[in-house]
Amino acid sequence: MNKQVLLAEHPSGLPTKSTWNYQTVEIPELSDGEILIKNYYISLDPAMRGWIREGKSYIEPVEVGAIMRAGTVGEVIKVNNHSKFKVGDFVCGWGGVQQYSVTNGKGFNIVDQTKAALECYLGIVGMPGMTAYFGILKVAELKKGDIVLVSGAAGAVGSLVGQIAKIKGCRVVGIAGGKTKCDYLTNELGFDAAIDYKNDNIYSGLKAHCPKGIDVFFDNVGGSILDGALTKLRMNARVVICGAISQYNTTTKPKGPSNYLSLLVNRASMKGMVVFDYQEQYPDAIKDYMKWIQAGLIKSKEDIYEGIENFNDTFLRLFSGDKIGKLILKVND
Amino acid sequence: MNKQVLLAEHPSGLPTKSTWNYQTVEIPELSDGEILIKNYYISLDPAMRGWIREGKSYIEPVEVGAIMRAGTVGEVIKVNNHSKFKVGDFVCGWGGVQQYSVTNGKGFNIVDQTKAALECYLGIVGMPGMTAYFGILKVAELKKGDIVLVSGAAGAVGSLVGQIAKIKGCRVVGIAGGKTKCDYLTNELGFDAAIDYKNDNIYSGLKAHCPKGIDVFFDNVGGSILDGALTKLRMNARVVICGAISQYNTTTKPKGPSNYLSLLVNRASMKGMVVFDYQEQYPDAIKDYMKWIQAGLIKSKEDIYEGIENFNDTFLRLFSGDKIGKLILKVND
Repeated sequence: MNKQVLLAEHPSGLPTKSTWNYQTVEIPELSDGEILIKNYYISLDPAMRGWIREGKSYIEPVEVGAIMRAGTVGEVIKVNNHSKFKVGDFVCGWGGVQQYSVTNGKGFNIVDQTKAALECYLGIVGMPGMTAYFGILKVAELKKGDIVLVSGAAGAVGSLVGQIAKIKGCRVVGIAGGKTKCDYLTNELGFDAAIDYKNDNIYSGLKAHCPKGIDVFFDNVGGSILDGALTKLRMNARVVICGAISQYNTTTKPKGPSNYLSLLVNRASMKGMVVFDYQEQYPDAIKDYMKWIQAGLIKSKEDIYEGIENFNDTFLRLFSGDKIGKLILKVND
Repeated sequence: MNKQVLLAEHPSGLPTKSTWNYQTVEIPELSDGEILIKNYYISLDPAMRGWIREGKSYIEPVEVGAIMRAGTVGEVIKVNNHSKFKVGDFVCGWGGVQQYSVTNGKGFNIVDQTKAALECYLGIVGMPGMTAYFGILKVAELKKGDIVLVSGAAGAVGSLVGQIAKIKGCRVVGIAGGKTKCDYLTNELGFDAAIDYKNDNIYSGLKAHCPKGIDVFFDNVGGSILDGALTKLRMNARVVICGAISQYNTTTKPKGPSNYLSLLVNRASMKGMVVFDYQEQYPDAIKDYMKWIQAGLIKSKEDIYEGIENFNDTFLRLFSGDKIGKLILKVND
């Protein structure tokens, strides 16, 4: 039997239980050319909130009644005449929020557990890792000596952005919610400073830790944090718009950055990015990550919760901030 | 005697009579190395509203009690031992809002009336012309075939931006206030279409005239026009933030662009610019403009009002939109 989570309605505001349909179905027989994957880990990403809106964004929205889209890693346990996969292969792809996926294999890739733990293929060597790597190196055009500010800094993407910038010889300041996360950034990940936006004033924090301003702001959060960061731009600063998690559940229009004219004054730029554009260069990023991991220069952390029935509660941790690093749901032993 | 306009107070909201001190003083004797300039034309620019704020922007603010900063063109009528200027030279520079300027000549340049009319040195071959040229060609990285949207399109900068884009083989749509201006854009300047934001809905206008979206948005206006344009960005679009005239007189925080996440979805960029950065390349721009003017490919229009005592009323035309092209105040015959 296969437990699945389907989209029941496009939510207004934070998703609730009624956003989803939980159902258990029989696993169908495989047709010719199909494989059956037993999913172990399901990726929970802020971007998923965008996919359940009604309108099209950079990707088609999930339709009501469809299995919720999600990145997964699992194991091929049954094959009906497939050229690429065999039983026992571990694979990563778009398996959706379900315990088992039946697929023709399109969009799935075999992963090598000797190189990285299975769950890392949803994190550092998965989509968040690729986003961080290409976002900070290509979109932000990072240079040695840059002063780098990262929001959502204890998250899957932000924590890697900051560590890459440290490797490249930058001063790195992270913004995160709560003392635990801030301590994690400075004590575990080597950030130069951290600003606790839940307990400290963001402007005083920026004044204290970025007295000379910032060359790069990598933004995962939007709202008043983006507005604060804009007041500290140096000449020719680059702002990377990777996400805006503070705005994803608003029922009104998102808050635009009032201080955007700082771009004019400082000849700065604000650029959007979508990681899929860099797909052909993923192998370069993975090679660098492997090197950095082996040299002890970079750490990743997965925050793993269990049980597909806990999907909604776990998903909401993205927005409450109640997790550190990459948020993952384990749906099979 | 020299009539001058001094800053009396940093205004909140629209400048009023009490923002300025009008005074008449005697012209002092020239010291060694000084020249006396009789100013004919004073440039009125949206940027001046920024200069009379309290805080520093990309340039020092005008201090209370100082002569209001402004670009000017005039004639040297007296010289006390100067190596660069002689009586009869026509010069352009920062003469300020006054009928006569006494200066050591720093920042002033001799202009050639045989090449362009005196007033053009405040327009097409002056700061607005340079802003348009480098903004659309360098900052926006204009390419042949781009769909270009310009706000403040009947203004000194916007009207040139659109015409340059036409010369470069682009489709050009302008946004301006009122039928007269819109007719001017399409009938006189060769814009492909115009949207009258005062009488038409901006979203319907964009839908009608930019059905395929836009590659470049050159923004002089900000506010809801910027927000509307952001909804029409194509992949890899470039937004140039040249100004935000709709926001300069607000007494609350400026309105940030709510739709800025369109940058993310469309991998687009938003870049600020300040024309002074291109100073060394001004001669290239002037050469191109001369060529285009002679070929009948570009037109400029100066809207000239008279009398230094009308400075405030004339200045306010920038914000009411009650002028076409480059706004100039004539202060001497």
